[in-house]
Amino acid sequence: MHDFVFHNPTKIIFGPGRDVEIGRELQSAGIGSVLLVYGRGSVRHSGLLDRIIKSLNEGGVGFVEHGGVISNPVLSHTRAGIDQARKSGVEAVLAVGGGSVMDEAKAIAIGAAADCDVWEFFLRRREVPAALPVFTIPTLAASGSEMNGNAVITNEESQQKYNIATIHAFPRVSILNPELTHSVAPEYSAYGAVDAISHLIEAYFTKQPGTRLQDRLVEGLILTIMENAAIIRDEPGNAPARSSMMWASTLALNGLTPAGVGPYTFPNHMIEHSLSAIYNIAHGAGLAIVMPAWMSWYRPQNPEQFQRFAREIFGLSSGEEGIAALKNWFKGLGCPVTLGEAGIAAGDIPAIRDNVFDTARIWGVDQLYPPTALAEILQLAV
Amino acid sequence: MHDFVFHNPTKIIFGPGRDVEIGRELQSAGIGSVLLVYGRGSVRHSGLLDRIIKSLNEGGVGFVEHGGVISNPVLSHTRAGIDQARKSGVEAVLAVGGGSVMDEAKAIAIGAAADCDVWEFFLRRREVPAALPVFTIPTLAASGSEMNGNAVITNEESQQKYNIATIHAFPRVSILNPELTHSVAPEYSAYGAVDAISHLIEAYFTKQPGTRLQDRLVEGLILTIMENAAIIRDEPGNAPARSSMMWASTLALNGLTPAGVGPYTFPNHMIEHSLSAIYNIAHGAGLAIVMPAWMSWYRPQNPEQFQRFAREIFGLSSGEEGIAALKNWFKGLGCPVTLGEAGIAAGDIPAIRDNVFDTARIWGVDQLYPPTALAEILQLAV
Repeated sequence: MHDFVFHNPTKIIFGPGRDVEIGRELQSAGIGSVLLVYGRGSVRHSGLLDRIIKSLNEGGVGFVEHGGVISNPVLSHTRAGIDQARKSGVEAVLAVGGGSVMDEAKAIAIGAAADCDVWEFFLRRREVPAALPVFTIPTLAASGSEMNGNAVITNEESQQKYNIATIHAFPRVSILNPELTHSVAPEYSAYGAVDAISHLIEAYFTKQPGTRLQDRLVEGLILTIMENAAIIRDEPGNAPARSSMMWASTLALNGLTPAGVGPYTFPNHMIEHSLSAIYNIAHGAGLAIVMPAWMSWYRPQNPEQFQRFAREIFGLSSGEEGIAALKNWFKGLGCPVTLGEAGIAAGDIPAIRDNVFDTARIWGVDQLYPPTALAEILQLAV
Repeated sequence: MHDFVFHNPTKIIFGPGRDVEIGRELQSAGIGSVLLVYGRGSVRHSGLLDRIIKSLNEGGVGFVEHGGVISNPVLSHTRAGIDQARKSGVEAVLAVGGGSVMDEAKAIAIGAAADCDVWEFFLRRREVPAALPVFTIPTLAASGSEMNGNAVITNEESQQKYNIATIHAFPRVSILNPELTHSVAPEYSAYGAVDAISHLIEAYFTKQPGTRLQDRLVEGLILTIMENAAIIRDEPGNAPARSSMMWASTLALNGLTPAGVGPYTFPNHMIEHSLSAIYNIAHGAGLAIVMPAWMSWYRPQNPEQFQRFAREIFGLSSGEEGIAALKNWFKGLGCPVTLGEAGIAAGDIPAIRDNVFDTARIWGVDQLYPPTALAEILQLAV
C-alpha cells in the first residue's frame, strides 16, 4: 500500500423514482437557484425535465435552463453556460443527463467561480480555486461523473479533449434513479459497461503489483458489470441488472479502487480521447477499440497481473487468452473493436498519434508513451 | 438492490508518519482549539502524544487534555469529557487511540453540542441535532470508527452497552498511520481482525439474497483481512500487512458494503455488547465467541448464503464446514471461541439473555430474537 488521500464527500441518494427529491435536497442545502444543464431533448421528451422542474418549484428553487449539451461536450457551449451562470447569478449547477452533461456542468461550475477563462484549468496552467456547488441526476450508467471531481471537455477548435480533477467539482448530492437508464439504447448501454470497465483496469494494470485488496475490489466490480451488461443486452428493462450496473459504474470511478495503489496512468483514456476529439465517436466505442490493443502492447510489462485478470475474470490461464476473451466480450455486446469497424482508416494513425502525444505531454507520460509506442498501439487496433 | 443513501464525507489521509499533519489539517479547517481525547498512557509512552502536541502547537491549535478513556468506554467518563469541552469552549474533538477512544470522542462531541444529557441519544429518545467536529488518529485496525458516524458507550451503572449512528459524528479528517499499529499486542491484533470480519458478515448473512456486487466486496475484504491477520500473527512488524489490515478494517464499516442490500440486522454485535457490558471482555474476544454460535443457529434461515461463504472464503462446499472453518481460524489466531474460554459460566446464560433482550427491544429486533432464541444461541457458545 502507498500513501493516499481519499475524500469523497458526495451524498448518493439511490432508488427508483427518487429524482423528484432534488428540490428538497437543494432547499435543505440552502440553494435558491440553479443553472439547469441538460442535453439535446431526450430528458424533455421522456418527461424527466418536467418532473425535475416541478420538484424545483415545490422546493422554491429558481432555475435558468442551459440545454443542448452534446456528447463529447465542447468548450464553446461550456463558455456559454458560464456566461449564463454569471449573468443570472445562480447559486449552483444541476446536471440532468449522462457523463457529458455532468462534465459540462462541472466545468461551468468551475468557470463561473473563476476569474480566468475555464480552459486555463484544463491546460493545467492554474489550480482550480473554487466552484459553484454541483448537483447531478445521471441518466446513464457509465462515466462515474456523479461521484467524482473529474470533467472532460473538448476544445473543438484545437481538437483537444482534456480533463480536470478537483475536490471542488465533486457533486454535493447525486440522485441515482436506475429507472432512468432502462430506455438507454442498446449500443449506449454497452458503451457504458465498456467505459466502467475501462475506469477499473487503468490502475489495475499500470500500478505496481501487490495490492491485493484493491485487485479484489476491481475484480468484483468487473464481474458485476459483465454479468449485468449481458442481462441488459438481452432484456433492457431488467430492473435489478440496471440497478447493479448503475451502482457498479459509480463505484468504478469514485476513487475507491485506486486508493493506496500508488502511481498509475490512464493510457487507454489518453488514446481514446484523441479518437473522440478527431472523429467524435462515442467514448465507450473508442475504448472498446483501444483497450484490447493497449493490453496486448502493455502485457509484457506486467505479465503476472494480466494472468491474474485472465484467471479471476474469465477462468483462463494465460494473459493473452484473457485479452482475447475481453475483446470477444466487447464484440458480443455489439461494440467496434478495431479502428476499421469505427470507419477510421489505418492511414490516419500518424495524425492520431500526434494528437495523443500532445495529451501525453500534458499528462507527463510522454517518456512512457513516445510517438513510436503510440503508433505501435494504434497499429494493434487496425 | 434496494434504495439507499450513501454519504461518507470523512477525509482519509493514509500513510506512515502522516499523523503529524494533524495540526495543519485542523488549522486549514479553521479549528482554533480541540479536546484531546486519549486512553490510559500507551500513546504517551510511545511518544505519539508528544508528536501530536508538537503538531498542534505548530498549527497554532490550542488543546485541553481528556485522557483515561478505557476499553468499553463508560458514560461517566464521557460526561466528564462533555463538561470539560463545554467549560473550555473547545471548537472540536481530536481522538488519538483505538475504537474506544474514537467512540468516546464522538459521544463527547455530540454531548457538548446538545442541550440534554448525552445518554438520551443512546436510548433513542432524541435525534442527534449536531456535534462538534471530530478528528481522529486511530492506533488500532479494528473498529472502523475512523470513517463512520457510529459510537458505542457503556452505561456502567445500568450495564447497558448502547450505540448511536449519526451523520454529525463522521470524522472530518482521519489520519491513518499504519505504523502506529505495529506494536499492538498479538491478542488485540487478532481481536481487531475478528471485529472487522464481524462488521462485514452482519449484513452479508442477514440481508435478502441477490446483491452479488455487495457479496463480492465483502468477500474481497474478508479474504484480505484473513490473509493479513495471519501474516501479522507471525510477523507483527510486517508493514504491508499492517497497512492492508488498516485500510480493510476501515472499509469494513464505512457504509460501502451494505449500501443497497436493504434491511439487515446486527445480531452478533447485539449479543456481544452484553458480554462486554457485564464481563468487560474485549469486544473482539466476545465476537469470536458469539459469531460461530450465531452462525450455526441462523444458517437454516439463509442456507445458500452460508454455502456461498464457505465456498468463496474457504473453498469448502457446505455451510456447516464454513462455520467450523471460521471458528477454527479464530482459534488459530488465539481468540476464545466459547464462553468457558472467556471464564463465563453457562449458568450465567439467563442473565446474559435478559441483558441482550433489552438491547433487542431498543433495536426493534425483539420479534426476531425473543429470549428463547437468545438462550439457544448462547447455549451454542458454551
